[in-house]
Amino acid sequence: MVKINLDYGAATPVDPAVLQAIFPFFAEHYGNPNSIHDLGERPRLALDEAREKVAALLGAGPEEIIFTSCASEANNTALKGLAAARKNKGNHIISCAIEHHSVLNPLRTLEKAGFKLTILPVDRYGLIDPEQLHEAITAETILISIQAANPEIGTLQPLARLTAVARERGVPFHTDATAAAGFIPLDVRDLDVDLLTLAGDQLYGPKGSAALYVRRGTRLLPLLEGGIQEKGRRAGTENVPAIVGLGEAAALARQRLAQHSSKLAALRDGLQEKLFAIVPHLHLNGHPRLRLPHNLHISVEFVEGEALLIHLNMAGIYVSSGSTCTSQALKSSHVLQSVGLAPELAQGSLLFTLGPESKAEDALYVAEQLYRIAALLRRMSPLYQKYMKEGKA
Amino acid sequence: MVKINLDYGAATPVDPAVLQAIFPFFAEHYGNPNSIHDLGERPRLALDEAREKVAALLGAGPEEIIFTSCASEANNTALKGLAAARKNKGNHIISCAIEHHSVLNPLRTLEKAGFKLTILPVDRYGLIDPEQLHEAITAETILISIQAANPEIGTLQPLARLTAVARERGVPFHTDATAAAGFIPLDVRDLDVDLLTLAGDQLYGPKGSAALYVRRGTRLLPLLEGGIQEKGRRAGTENVPAIVGLGEAAALARQRLAQHSSKLAALRDGLQEKLFAIVPHLHLNGHPRLRLPHNLHISVEFVEGEALLIHLNMAGIYVSSGSTCTSQALKSSHVLQSVGLAPELAQGSLLFTLGPESKAEDALYVAEQLYRIAALLRRMSPLYQKYMKEGKA
Repeated sequence: MVKINLDYGAATPVDPAVLQAIFPFFAEHYGNPNSIHDLGERPRLALDEAREKVAALLGAGPEEIIFTSCASEANNTALKGLAAARKNKGNHIISCAIEHHSVLNPLRTLEKAGFKLTILPVDRYGLIDPEQLHEAITAETILISIQAANPEIGTLQPLARLTAVARERGVPFHTDATAAAGFIPLDVRDLDVDLLTLAGDQLYGPKGSAALYVRRGTRLLPLLEGGIQEKGRRAGTENVPAIVGLGEAAALARQRLAQHSSKLAALRDGLQEKLFAIVPHLHLNGHPRLRLPHNLHISVEFVEGEALLIHLNMAGIYVSSGSTCTSQALKSSHVLQSVGLAPELAQGSLLFTLGPESKAEDALYVAEQLYRIAALLRRMSPLYQKYMKEGKA
Repeated sequence: MVKINLDYGAATPVDPAVLQAIFPFFAEHYGNPNSIHDLGERPRLALDEAREKVAALLGAGPEEIIFTSCASEANNTALKGLAAARKNKGNHIISCAIEHHSVLNPLRTLEKAGFKLTILPVDRYGLIDPEQLHEAITAETILISIQAANPEIGTLQPLARLTAVARERGVPFHTDATAAAGFIPLDVRDLDVDLLTLAGDQLYGPKGSAALYVRRGTRLLPLLEGGIQEKGRRAGTENVPAIVGLGEAAALARQRLAQHSSKLAALRDGLQEKLFAIVPHLHLNGHPRLRLPHNLHISVEFVEGEALLIHLNMAGIYVSSGSTCTSQALKSSHVLQSVGLAPELAQGSLLFTLGPESKAEDALYVAEQLYRIAALLRRMSPLYQKYMKEGKA
C-alpha cells in the first residue's frame, strides 16, 4: 500500500543516529546531571556537549542556550520572561499577524496585564515591511517578536533587515525559528537576534526537545521557577535524553543543512510543477521564492480542505490543512486571513511539507490523486457548478 | 567495583517495560497526535491510553489529567494558573515551609504580584498541624498547596485531614506528590485534593514526563499558551514517547505499589538499623514512621555532608546531601532549617533513597564505609576534637 508522508511539518521521525545517541540515557546513564556523585557525571557531560552542538548550529555561545520542553515553552518563556524583566522600561510589544499561537496567545495575555501590542500586518506573501516596523517602534517598545519562517505558508521574513531596525532603536528582538531551524542558515550574530526559538521535533530530533537562545546579557525572568537548572532560567530536572537528542539533531542539521535543503527544495519544486500541470484551479500561497525549502502551500479552488485531507489519506497521502496545533479546532487559519486570501480559497488549502523519505517519483502519484479527488469533490460543489455555468462565460 | 545507588530520589532508571513501550514512538509511530490522517492515529490512541493509566493510578478521570514536561512545570501551572483564574475571588494563598522550590518560588513571584502568602511552619518531624491550617484560612484564601511527602526528609503529611479543613472552607487544595506517587496510595477522591502533581522520573518512567491532576470543574489558566493541546490547558506538541512512558510507569506503579513499597521499607529499615548500630553519632531526620518507604535521612554529627558525599562516592556509594535540584548551589536546606535542625547537624546530612536495585546485603558495606569515612573526617574536625575533650565530660 502506498504511504506518502507530506506532513513532516506536523512531526518528523527521529533520525536513526539521534535515536542511537539518546538510547543509553534512559536506563543506563539515567543519573541526574546535578548529582555530585559518579551517576551525575555522564549525563552532565552529555548536557554540556548537547549545549555546545545547539549553540554551534546558531553560532551562539553554549551559555546562551536554555533547553526547554517544546517550542511553545521557549516562546512563552521568551515573551513573558522578557516582558516581566523589562516592564519598568516600557510597556509596548511589537509582533506580527501570522505568528504561531504560542507567540500570539502569550502576547494577548500580556495585553490583558497592561502591555500595549502592535500587531504588524503582512502583505499577500506574508512579508513584513521593515519600514512599518520602524514606524511602529516607540520609546516604550521593550520587545519585538517576529518569526523566521511561517510554519504554514513557509514565507521567510527579511530577518536581518528587521533586526537592523530594532538594533538602531535598542529594542530586543525575538524570533520564533521553529519552522526554519535546520532548513535555512540561522546564525544569531549574522541575523543579530537577541532571542531565538527552535524545536527538535522539526529537525529529526525527539519530541519534548527545544531550545531558547538568549543573547548574553539579556535579562529574562524564568517562566518555570524552582530549582537551579539552566542557571535558574528554567527549573525542572533536565530531560537528558531529549536534550542529547536535540544536540545530535542540531549537529546533523549543521552538517547537512545546505545539501538537505537543496534536495528538499528540488523535490518540492518537482511536486509543485506536477500539481500545477495536472490539477486545474490551484493557487499557490506564500511567497514563490522566499519560502522554506520543504514547504508547499496551495489552495484547491471549489473544495473543502478537510474533505481533501480525508480522501488523500485514503489514497495513502498524508498532508495537512495548516498548522497541526490548531487543526483539530477546524477554524480557518489566521495566517491565510492575514495574507488576505479569500475565504473560499482558504478553506480549500493544503500544506505539503517534505522530509527525509520524500521521493521525486511520488509527485506524479500525488498529482494524479489530487486531480481525481478534486474532480470528485467539485462534482458535489455548488460553487464549482456555478463557476462552470457562469464563471467561464 | 562496588556500585550502590542510594540516590534514586535524584533520578530513577527507566523500567525495561517502560522503555519497550516508549521505543516505537520515536521513529516508527512518530506522527503528531493532532494530525487528522493515519500518522496521527496510533500516537493519539497511545496518548488516550496513557491518560487512562495515569488517571487510574490516582482514581481520577482521564479528562482530569494534564500532561506536562516535569513536576516543576506542573507545580508552576497549578499555582500560577489557579491564582490567575481565581484572582477575582481573593488574594491569599497558603503553603508550607518545606515545599519544593518549584512551589515556593512561584509563590514568591505571586507575592510580588500582589498575592498574600501564609507559609505554615512544620514541627520537628516536618508535620503540619491541621489546626494551624484551619486558623490560617481567611475569606480571601483562594488556594492551599501542601506536599504529600517531603522529597528530603520523607515526611508524609496528614493529607486527608488537611484537605478536610480546606473543603470545609471551600478552598481548592493542590498537593505536590512528586516524591510520593508510586510509593504510597494516592486516590484523589479519598484524599479529596483538587490538584495533584506527579512526575515520571520518580517512578521509573522517563525524564520529561509529568502530570497535573485537575479536578473536573476547577478553573485554571494555562501557563504555556499556544495550540489546543491538552484541551487548551497546556500548549506544545505532545511529547508522545514521554507520555506513553509515564502511562506505562503509572500502570506498573499501580500494579506493584504495595509490594514494592513494603520491600523498599524493609530494605530501608535494614539499612537504618545497620547504620545506627555501627556508626556513632547519627541523628535521624524526618518522622520515624510517617515517611516515604524508600527514604532515610540522617545527620552525621561533626562532619560536612559534601565531604561525606565525595568519600562515599569514592567507595562506590551514591547518596545525596538533600534535594538534587539545589545541591549544586551548596546552600543549607530550607527543609532542615524549617524542622529546626541545628546548623551543625544540617550540614552533615545524608539522604538515602532506595530503589529497584537496592539489596539487603548492601547495608553492611554502606555502614562500614560510613563508619570509616566519618571517623576519618572527624579526626580533622575541630568540633569533634572539642567534643571529645569537653563534651563527654
